Amino acid sequence: MTRVRVHNFSISLDGYGAGPRQTREEPLGVGGEALHDWFVQTRAFQRINGKTGGTTGADDDMAARFGEGVGAFIMGRNMFGPIRGAWPDDAWRGWWGKNPPYHVPVFVLTHHPRSPIEMEGGTVFHFVTDGPREALRRATEAAAGKDVQIGGGVATIRQYLGAGLIDELHVAIAPRLLGSGEHLLHGLDLPALGYECTTHTPTAAATHVVLTRS
Amino acid sequence: MTRVRVHNFSISLDGYGAGPRQTREEPLGVGGEALHDWFVQTRAFQRINGKTGGTTGADDDMAARFGEGVGAFIMGRNMFGPIRGAWPDDAWRGWWGKNPPYHVPVFVLTHHPRSPIEMEGGTVFHFVTDGPREALRRATEAAAGKDVQIGGGVATIRQYLGAGLIDELHVAIAPRLLGSGEHLLHGLDLPALGYECTTHTPTAAATHVVLTRS
Repeated sequence: MTRVRVHNFSISLDGYGAGPRQTREEPLGVGGEALHDWFVQTRAFQRINGKTGGTTGADDDMAARFGEGVGAFIMGRNMFGPIRGAWPDDAWRGWWGKNPPYHVPVFVLTHHPRSPIEMEGGTVFHFVTDGPREALRRATEAAAGKDVQIGGGVATIRQYLGAGLIDELHVAIAPRLLGSGEHLLHGLDLPALGYECTTHTPTAAATHVVLTRS
Repeated sequence: MTRVRVHNFSISLDGYGAGPRQTREEPLGVGGEALHDWFVQTRAFQRINGKTGGTTGADDDMAARFGEGVGAFIMGRNMFGPIRGAWPDDAWRGWWGKNPPYHVPVFVLTHHPRSPIEMEGGTVFHFVTDGPREALRRATEAAAGKDVQIGGGVATIRQYLGAGLIDELHVAIAPRLLGSGEHLLHGLDLPALGYECTTHTPTAAATHVVLTRS
């Protein structure tokens, strides 16, 4: 049975998953990058990015669930890149270089059609123009019994959360304030949607919680 | 120099300081009481309530700052009691019995005048009808060089935070979801107001942060 999971989604103390004024230089907005300090230092992060080293421990244990048993990813168009509106050409192929850290099909939500892009290492970007449910249907099919992981960003996770379509959401609360930007949970009544906090693992770098839908 | 402090203010993972449907039986709304599980077990909580026992450790260390060096308290009318509108009589004297845990003057924000109430143990409730700044002026005067602590609830803290009048705010994030109720920080841009996170002490029961205004 395919589960729909989110991992390593960092928010600030005041609940923002991205800061204000997102640009190509600061794709997570002003202050947004610092939300991931707990993640960047882990062995899992280094491995995901094809490197060695990094810390072990509770942060790494949480981080390491990224991609584990995952057969397809879904992400929003703003997580795929900084381009808005119609695709001007085929030059933009994601933030991650030739060999992205997904290694399975990735379904990108967009209003603008584009042909699939086959990258090195098994990642294929598919562009889905008929909405989040259709993206999930295609991702579930592609995952062939494995899980589907939703990468982000905030708007994409909010869409799936609000529809009750996420089974498991790992949120890392970083000890930072952003003040404005994209708020992850505002206006979403998670208990009413069936979610509860099933894991609580605080570390010096972040408070990890897993919200699970029953 | 008098500082204005908040201690032991518990919020849920989704940012609520009180749950929905507040009643006399559930003054913190549905689910709100559970936000304080980390606090109730501490030695400081037992001491504040005139008892002995309780846990020591990081939760207790944070909790114990309640009242320390504090010469006056401020609280909102809904924290003082469940009565709304004009006072029907003088019967309601707070939730805390004959000897409340304040032992100094307490300034209660209300739109409805009422004579001061002198309790056992040094607590005197004063009712302030001319707004939060006047309450702070009177509390600062009464504190005579000691600090002023703002007790709550959410609406009161939001008023003082939004005006940049709180110097130090200890928030305990409990591993619970409330889904709705009174949100502590929504719409308040804390970095723009000069606040940053200066202490981050996660425990198994709560994530303690101190937000300080520079």
